[in-house]
Formats: sequence, C-alpha cells, structure tokens
Amino acid sequence: MSKLFMFEKPLGMRDTLPALFERKKQVRNQLADEIGSWGYQYMATPTVEYYETVGSASAILDQQLFKLLDKEGHTLVLRPDVTTPFARVAASKLLNNSPLRLAYEANVFRAQQREGGRPAEFEQIGVELIGDATMSSDAEVIALMIGALKRAGLKSFKVAIGHIGFVNSLFLEIVGNEERANVLRRFLYEKNYVGYRNHVKDLNLSSIDKQRLLQLLNLRGDEKKIEEAVELVENEAGKKAAGDLKKLWNMLDAYGVTDEIKIDFNLVSHMSYYTGILFEVFAENVGFHIGNGGRYDQLLEKFASKTPATGFGIQLDRLIEALGEEVYEPSAVYGILYSQERLDEALALAAEQRKQGYRVVTQEIAGVDDVDVFTAQFEEVTFLIGKRGKGGQ
Amino acid sequence: MSKLFMFEKPLGMRDTLPALFERKKQVRNQLADEIGSWGYQYMATPTVEYYETVGSASAILDQQLFKLLDKEGHTLVLRPDVTTPFARVAASKLLNNSPLRLAYEANVFRAQQREGGRPAEFEQIGVELIGDATMSSDAEVIALMIGALKRAGLKSFKVAIGHIGFVNSLFLEIVGNEERANVLRRFLYEKNYVGYRNHVKDLNLSSIDKQRLLQLLNLRGDEKKIEEAVELVENEAGKKAAGDLKKLWNMLDAYGVTDEIKIDFNLVSHMSYYTGILFEVFAENVGFHIGNGGRYDQLLEKFASKTPATGFGIQLDRLIEALGEEVYEPSAVYGILYSQERLDEALALAAEQRKQGYRVVTQEIAGVDDVDVFTAQFEEVTFLIGKRGKGGQ
Repeated sequence: MSKLFMFEKPLGMRDTLPALFERKKQVRNQLADEIGSWGYQYMATPTVEYYETVGSASAILDQQLFKLLDKEGHTLVLRPDVTTPFARVAASKLLNNSPLRLAYEANVFRAQQREGGRPAEFEQIGVELIGDATMSSDAEVIALMIGALKRAGLKSFKVAIGHIGFVNSLFLEIVGNEERANVLRRFLYEKNYVGYRNHVKDLNLSSIDKQRLLQLLNLRGDEKKIEEAVELVENEAGKKAAGDLKKLWNMLDAYGVTDEIKIDFNLVSHMSYYTGILFEVFAENVGFHIGNGGRYDQLLEKFASKTPATGFGIQLDRLIEALGEEVYEPSAVYGILYSQERLDEALALAAEQRKQGYRVVTQEIAGVDDVDVFTAQFEEVTFLIGKRGKGGQ
Repeated sequence: MSKLFMFEKPLGMRDTLPALFERKKQVRNQLADEIGSWGYQYMATPTVEYYETVGSASAILDQQLFKLLDKEGHTLVLRPDVTTPFARVAASKLLNNSPLRLAYEANVFRAQQREGGRPAEFEQIGVELIGDATMSSDAEVIALMIGALKRAGLKSFKVAIGHIGFVNSLFLEIVGNEERANVLRRFLYEKNYVGYRNHVKDLNLSSIDKQRLLQLLNLRGDEKKIEEAVELVENEAGKKAAGDLKKLWNMLDAYGVTDEIKIDFNLVSHMSYYTGILFEVFAENVGFHIGNGGRYDQLLEKFASKTPATGFGIQLDRLIEALGEEVYEPSAVYGILYSQERLDEALALAAEQRKQGYRVVTQEIAGVDDVDVFTAQFEEVTFLIGKRGKGGQ
C-alpha cells in the first residue's frame, strides 16, 4: 500500500473534523428543538436495507444506490433516503394512531460517478407527517421547516412552492399523452428552461397551445401567479391544483411565513414521486437547494397501506454552508500540565474548573513532545510541575 | 414481493422507535457532557472506507466485515470500528499538536452469521488519546470512562483491567514459542477456562510450570493480585508489565475510582491489537461487556506513524440495557385539535404553549380518522372546533 493511497477515502466520502463536527451538532440541535416543540418524534432506521423492499421503492435512481450482497445472495442497499424506510416502519407498526408526526437526523448515501463536488454520504434532517390528506398538513410541514431554519439562524432564504398536479394536468391537456408530457417534465426537472423553450417551438401544436406552454415559465412569483395559473389551465384537475395552492397560501399566511414563500409552478422534483404540493428551499449564497419536500401519497402503497403523507428534508451541510458568514468559534478548552508527583493537585484543580462549566484537559508533561505547540491550543494553561509549591502555577 | 418480506430488514439490522431514540439521545448527551468537559473533541469519519486502508488494519475479523465494490473494482467496507479510521485521520492530519484527545459517537457494522441476538449495526461512544506513551494517559481514559458511565446514571459496574504484556511474557517464558503461546491466549480470549485447564494438563511441561500456568487463572481480584503476578513471572518484561499495573492502580486511586476497578490478568481482548493495559466494563445485569479499551501502540504504524495511543469504546445499546431499571418516560406532548376556520386561534395557542417550553401538536380535525385513538397519546388536548367561542376549549 503506497503512502498516498493509505490515507484515501472512497469517492465522495469525507471526514468531519472537530470544528465542523461541533458546528453540525449545534445546528442539528437547534433544528431538533424546533421540530421537537411541534410534537414530532424522532426515530431511526438501519443504514442497510433490502434492495427489494426499501431500495426499489425509493425515489433515488438505481445507479446512485450503494449495493452489496448478503450471505444468502440478497441485494442490500445503503439507505438512499429516509422517507422510504420510514414508510416501511409506519406501514408495519405505527399507523394505529395516525396522523403520525415523525422526525429524523440521518445520513443518506448516493454513489457518485466522478470526482469533485457532491458528497456520497450526507446528513438529512427532516420530518414526515403521515396519514393526513388535508392541505393543513402541507402547510404545517412548510411552516415548521421555515421555523426550524429561522431557529438555526438562517436569515435570507425563500421556499419555492409548486404543485405537480397542476403541471401534469396542463401538459396532458395540451400534448395529449404521458410520454410527451414526460419530455416536457424532464426539462423542468433539470431546470433547463432554454431546452424547454426550444422543444416547445418544435412541437406540432397550434401557436396558442405553444404560447400556453411557454406561459407556464412565467408562473413564478408572488401569490398573483396563482390566479394566472387558474386562467392558463382548462381542465378541472388543473384548476383544483391551482386552487389548492391558493388555500395553502392562505394557511401559510396564518402561520405568518409568506415573506419566505415564492410560488413556482415550474417546480418538478424527482421524476415521479411527489403527488401534490412540492417545494424547495434556496438560500442566497448556495447554488443547490438546501432542503425540499412535498406530498407523496403513493409511497405507502408500496408497503400495502394506502396512506397520504407529506414531509421535508434539510441537507445539513448545505444549511451550514448557507449559515456560513458567522464562522463558528469552537468552545474554549483550558489546559493543566502536571508532573507525575502532582497528579492529585492537577485532578483537584480540573474537577473544580469543570464544576464551573469549563472544558479542561489534564496532561502529564512527560507525555508531551513539544510543550509550546501543545499548549497553544488552550485558552489558558496552568503548570503544576516539580515539587509542590515550586511549579509555575 | 410478499407482504411479509416487504417489512423485513437484513440480518441484525434494527429500527429505533421513538421512545428508544429519545432515551439513546439522552444517554449519548450525558456521556458527551462528561467527555467534552475533559477537553476531548468529537469528530466523524465516513461510513464507507477502503478495505485496503481501514478494513484490513481493523481488529475486526474479515468475515465480520460488510464488503462492497466501487465502480473501479476497489473493495469497500462499512466502518467496522472507529479506532482504525481515527488512526487514519490522526496520522494524516492531526498529529502536529499531540497528545490528541478525540471522541466519537458512531455506528459500527459487523456482519452476523445467523439469526438471533447480536446486532449488525450498533452505536459506539468513546475516546482515543493519541500520542502519549505514559501510563497517565491509560489512567485518564479509564477514569474518564468511569466518570462518563456514572454521569449517565450507571450504578453497579466493574472495570476489569489486565495487561497483555504480562500474559505474553509469562506464556513465552513457560511454553517457549509464539505458536504455543497463541493456543493458550485463545482460551483466555474465549474466556474458556475449562478448556485452558485441560490444555495445560496435556502440555509437555514440568509440573511446576503447569502449576504456574494454572496459577494465572487465580490472578483476578483486588490490587494484591498484582504482587502475586510479580512473583509468578520471572522475566523482566513480565515483571515490568505487572509493575505498570501497580502504577496505574495508584493513579486511578488519585482519580478516586478504584472502587470500580478489578484486576484481571486473564484479560485478552481481540487476538492481536492491544499492546499493554487493556480493560472491559461489566454491569451487573448484562451478559456481555458494555465497553472496553486499552493501549494500541502499533495501529498507527499501519498509517506510517509510530505513535502510541489508548482509548475506550462504550456500546450504547448495552449501556442502556444496563441502565434498564429506570424505564424512560418520553417527554409529554400536548395536542390542539382545530377546525379549519379556527387555524389562527390554534396557532396562537400553540405558539404560546411552545414558548413556555411545552411540546405541542396542532392538528386539523378533518385529517383525523379516529379522534379518541389519536388524542389518547397527548398529556392534554384542547379542541378549537366550530365557530369561534363555541368550541370545547
């Protein structure tokens, strides 16, 4: 093993050094304080699941799954998301007193194809509200997400909210079949609006219908866009979807969070997973969304339970990047260096300082190579060296 | 997919339902409070590492590793322990201001061969003190472990401490070569004392030497056993190892923790990993040790750094089992059920109650199937139903 390779980690795998670890814990706890105060209960599922159960039901693409084989030849996967295993547990054990309010803080795994950038393991923090089909549960998870982000200190962010039912019925109404609708959806999913425009121009449609498809791209902005959406679509399902968004807006107004909301009828997250309201959170200084969510009324059917559900997930590392400006100051540590014969004294002093809430390292001086370098990390250093009463305290 | 299989998890994988999740978090935080107050810094490494680096350097048996392949055909492993990846990070990045005090709370993975009992994924919480060869660092990690266990509320437990150097030199002195010593060590490792006795009887040795090997089994008890050990061994290395244990005992006395200590010269953890002091913690009501540790001065050499180190790891689920008697009471949740037109009122009341530190669920009544079952989970329920002022508040 060459020395270089010796220190390497698999593609997309990262170490979390102490300063970042402490910062993550702080933000995780702030989110948990808010999520817990809304009565959500945390739970955890295994890192490894069967491909046949959780892996194939997940919204994550097959090529992004970490797969392994067990001794019996079953394919296993590293948890690609949390929503799917939570659906498994909810469907098998917890639905008796629904609606259920569950929360998680868990690492998820996505195999990366090439060097650079995206992590293959990252922490998601989020909630699932399972068993409530009313719009009030969509409003609740969005308001909770905004409350949690504010509790963590995030200042400048927007939640873009759309409705996949609106997009689906508008497309089907104009292009006539799912296959052609799917092509359009993929452009939106990839946020490739230039490609969308070019594709629409080439479609064999009346110029009015082309204009309607292009008009969809303008349905991003404040609540007035909802009325424009109602005008744009002709079928009942589409009008109802836009109307749902209006209802949601009014509820979010009651929650007092509409300053953070943007309507975006172009939103398509995952190709087929969400079934109604869906949303993504963007912070000013981060290129990717830092969290997302929506309604997924068909997932629990895969676990033999026809149960509606909605939820959100925040990607912790991206949130921390968004919080960036305030560089985190790890808590101060005090040092006591002692020589062997003064261990008693060192321990008594450390106990005293710890009782006052300080973090205190005790270190026998014989174990230190370079005292100057070692002590530089401490806020304050006490030396208890040599015979009692002679040292440099 | 049959309905039964649909809910299954791979061998040894477990869900952590809300009550246990909350309890684990509470105990984890208690341990972290103590560990942090001693100036240890938490860090984290990836769940997935290269077999060639971390996997093969780990003390965990090859057949217990979860292995997978990456796109380039490299073998990857799920983290089988924390000490080995921490050695990787320390050796590559952190040794400049050693001794280093690092801590972790991480899941580790051990593939299980058959149903029943042992988990394949479990959380370990522990520390590594890297870069200090003095006995004071062994004393520190043992005293810290005892302090952390007490902080978590553990009452009745013992730390058995041995010295692998003593065992090794006694065996080599009597049986003459490593191969024969290894056979004896394995009996101790498996805590198979009957097998050890029978094996010793069959050895081609003088009756005095046989007696000395059998005498080793009596070297378990209080500090007086250390003097018996010094008598039993003839070579200098063995006498020094026993002397080290005496020195350690005196330091632990200064820490005030000898009530929890038992000397055990029969202790052999892993077959080849620890290089000096080693220890295991036992609680009254749990069959396996709930934590262990020791000195491992040769591990960092595998990462091209000749650096001594010592540490401990506690298995969180076993600790919680040991704490068992005090059944954990999850924190109370209050419920507010509202009808749509009274959302404002419900949110204002919830905000008020949350400000007072309560956990509060708000739920639109239209989303509830069975109000009696749903509300049974709450400490107190407020109904805001129908026209304002008419509901059952």
